[in-house]
Amino acid sequence: MKESLKFIRLQQKELSLLGGVSALLNWDQMTYMPQKGGVERAEQISLISRLTHDRIISDEFYNHILKLSDKKNMKTLEKHDRIIVERLKKDVEKARKIPSEYIQRAAKTISLSYNAWQTAKKKKKYKLFAPYLKKIIELEQEYTDYIKLPGHPYNTLLDDYEEGMTVNKLKNEFNHLKKPLTKLLEDIKNSKKYEKQKPITGTYPAEKQREINELILKHMMIPSDKSRLDTSAHPFTIQINNDDVRITTRYNKQNPLSSFYATIHEAGHALYDLGLPKGVYKDTVISQAPSVGLHESQSRFWENMVGRSKDFWYYWHTILKKKYQNIKNQDTWYYIANQVKPSTIRVEADELTYGLHIILRFEIELLLINDKIKINEIPDTWNEKMTELIGVKPRNDAEGVLQDMHWSTGDIGYFPTYLIGSIYSAQIHKQLLKDQPDTPQQIRKGDYQDIIKWLRRNIHRYGRTLTSEQIIKKTCNEGLNANVYIQYLKNKYSDIYDL
Amino acid sequence: MKESLKFIRLQQKELSLLGGVSALLNWDQMTYMPQKGGVERAEQISLISRLTHDRIISDEFYNHILKLSDKKNMKTLEKHDRIIVERLKKDVEKARKIPSEYIQRAAKTISLSYNAWQTAKKKKKYKLFAPYLKKIIELEQEYTDYIKLPGHPYNTLLDDYEEGMTVNKLKNEFNHLKKPLTKLLEDIKNSKKYEKQKPITGTYPAEKQREINELILKHMMIPSDKSRLDTSAHPFTIQINNDDVRITTRYNKQNPLSSFYATIHEAGHALYDLGLPKGVYKDTVISQAPSVGLHESQSRFWENMVGRSKDFWYYWHTILKKKYQNIKNQDTWYYIANQVKPSTIRVEADELTYGLHIILRFEIELLLINDKIKINEIPDTWNEKMTELIGVKPRNDAEGVLQDMHWSTGDIGYFPTYLIGSIYSAQIHKQLLKDQPDTPQQIRKGDYQDIIKWLRRNIHRYGRTLTSEQIIKKTCNEGLNANVYIQYLKNKYSDIYDL
Repeated sequence: MKESLKFIRLQQKELSLLGGVSALLNWDQMTYMPQKGGVERAEQISLISRLTHDRIISDEFYNHILKLSDKKNMKTLEKHDRIIVERLKKDVEKARKIPSEYIQRAAKTISLSYNAWQTAKKKKKYKLFAPYLKKIIELEQEYTDYIKLPGHPYNTLLDDYEEGMTVNKLKNEFNHLKKPLTKLLEDIKNSKKYEKQKPITGTYPAEKQREINELILKHMMIPSDKSRLDTSAHPFTIQINNDDVRITTRYNKQNPLSSFYATIHEAGHALYDLGLPKGVYKDTVISQAPSVGLHESQSRFWENMVGRSKDFWYYWHTILKKKYQNIKNQDTWYYIANQVKPSTIRVEADELTYGLHIILRFEIELLLINDKIKINEIPDTWNEKMTELIGVKPRNDAEGVLQDMHWSTGDIGYFPTYLIGSIYSAQIHKQLLKDQPDTPQQIRKGDYQDIIKWLRRNIHRYGRTLTSEQIIKKTCNEGLNANVYIQYLKNKYSDIYDL
Repeated sequence: MKESLKFIRLQQKELSLLGGVSALLNWDQMTYMPQKGGVERAEQISLISRLTHDRIISDEFYNHILKLSDKKNMKTLEKHDRIIVERLKKDVEKARKIPSEYIQRAAKTISLSYNAWQTAKKKKKYKLFAPYLKKIIELEQEYTDYIKLPGHPYNTLLDDYEEGMTVNKLKNEFNHLKKPLTKLLEDIKNSKKYEKQKPITGTYPAEKQREINELILKHMMIPSDKSRLDTSAHPFTIQINNDDVRITTRYNKQNPLSSFYATIHEAGHALYDLGLPKGVYKDTVISQAPSVGLHESQSRFWENMVGRSKDFWYYWHTILKKKYQNIKNQDTWYYIANQVKPSTIRVEADELTYGLHIILRFEIELLLINDKIKINEIPDTWNEKMTELIGVKPRNDAEGVLQDMHWSTGDIGYFPTYLIGSIYSAQIHKQLLKDQPDTPQQIRKGDYQDIIKWLRRNIHRYGRTLTSEQIIKKTCNEGLNANVYIQYLKNKYSDIYDL
């Protein structure tokens, strides 16, 4: 028993170290790696992944877990060890269902597929990517066969990102959203204010944007000795170790809000990583987020509920005014940060149409996994749905089906977590306002300490002791509920567009 | 046979990938890591080291090597495979003499010792470091017992950095150097020009220094898509993979030559790394430098023989003039780059006194390994030798015995390679001028292509097919020869100081 406990502790510690090593290899690839370093970098990442997987599925590790999870033994364990062993058993048994040969084959296919996607996107030709997408879908189908969760095969894919989530639940929530969102979009388009879109004018030097970003990080209490802010093509957050969580942003000289909101978004992720449970759970499977969706709820919460609120701009418009010496007032910044602009591109989408982008991808992924659509039909379906849901049509494949890298990297089932995160963020926001009604006043002062304390207490500290939905239920008294999100959006946009 | 060949190829490939992973962890630690990430970074580095060592000493690997190195089998191998197997056998048998337990214990002691050294240096108190140095020396002595090369125990330590080098050989060369160097220093001090030292005045923005550094990298044909230039407390070069070799420098606004020469020095290392043999030797033990000293010869060659030559400044003084808008002419820059300034600090030493710094360390290391000096006597011995050799006395331990980190990291036997490299660089330079007499004219034009080609052909391409001394013998027709170095220094300083 003691020996087994010691073994699984050490194993988790080393897995966590290897995870950090892998994270650094990825971070460097996205930020500073010289261009030609990429080929062997892929090999380095793949080697560390293999070493990690081999460790997870090793018989020695599993036998220790089995020994500890024996009913009699479990009773003698302390509560936190029991939680760790249960969690580990589930994780390891899932991993052991996947043959190592599959892992390597998949890694290779993904690598080729990602390259093909890059070329295809550059040349705006879906055809160049299609055969690889076919292979990716076959790989994913093979994967669902190994794991075989009950119900729809897509459930298995979802579960990797959002444990316990099912197609039925999601369809229910997303269908619930679809009409109100398109209706709201319609109303906004018909409003008088919509006609008077305000473009951002002027140029905003990256150096000044960076200074403001550093300032918001300080306000969000991201410790500068445990973090970094860098630049990458796509902003991301990555944990290198318990005391090293890094975020990236990207600068657009024509739009100072682009890097600003990316930074706030990523800082939301970073706060979560830094707030995960330590102590008895340090370097264990518990000191992680229970799902990608809950992680996304934290970034969305900061980006939208805090960062795109009127109260937020009460404080920050003076900071931006000083820095850029322009004369935009609070209301203008608030409006610019929130104006609805239907676009074919997800990452440029406003808060309202963003959800519709996700629903589109979710629906196509379901068709793909079920073989209910031919690979070559996807662009047409994509474009039709885009027109139907958002009212815009991609001019080419790069603006349409090829815009996101997710499919090329085998991340089918990932997109929904973006919308799940958005819904959760609205629920969290609602509960926070109930628990701490002076939150808006604090936001007006640029003071986020109490918000962070509340998040630490109600979301972060659970780690994986509970599932996402359990955490949300515990904190917000109900599970995933799209209605809260709809209400939040209606209130916001009614105000902005005088609906 | 085929299977064994395949196995050792793959094993070397993965060891090389792991080496790169470790390199990235170190590079990041020295450049961008947030301060508090250090504790777990040490654990990550140590885990990768252990995984690497375990692989090197695994029975499976050794058995394949033994099988291949069987006389009969060797005969059937292609020449390059024979070379690889021989080299591997030597490396692996050496590594297998060290117990894994020792590796871990040493890593821990070094980590503590390095921290203690940092504190001690900050507080300028040798006493805080002394007990750790004692442990380091004991570890090194234990190590020499495992490997036990013939002769002086220090031979074993030397051999790790400079294969085949012995205390006797070194004593011979270094003693040979000592008198002429101190004599030359004396003559310079007594010269008229020495009295008129020229201080560098003005300030030189880091950004402009950086631009010049990027320019010299271009001239030195360092490919920008396979390299980076960053900033760190101590400049270094590190190879992340075959197509990713990074260098660092550091900026001193009062002295533009500091970052310039550091960059040239490190670029010399990088050129060597990039020029190591590929093809049949790619990702094998052969595609490495045979010794630290030969590696250092490349950096010294570029820094001193090229970078501190009069011809070099013929080209670069116009570049610096444009950039800094100051009026220093070629002769002034040349003089500033070469003026002799006895200092207590090795890394600030001029070309002449640098060697004396190394001799001092070499002599103390010999005493330490032989237990011929007590740990608490070292500062006094250090200061006496410093006064005797260089004519300056450290004002405190930070300027004396604590200035270098090498002992704290267990690198006893490393210092001599700096001087070996300097001697080799003079020999290489002499031969290059013989082989390509128009070299000075090319340097005057800032054109280093033919120099690089010559180095590739005569030094880089050998990798570890030969030892350093064999390479030097082959190229320069004689082994390590301090006389050439003395002659080079005499010629140079006679000219500068009108001796």
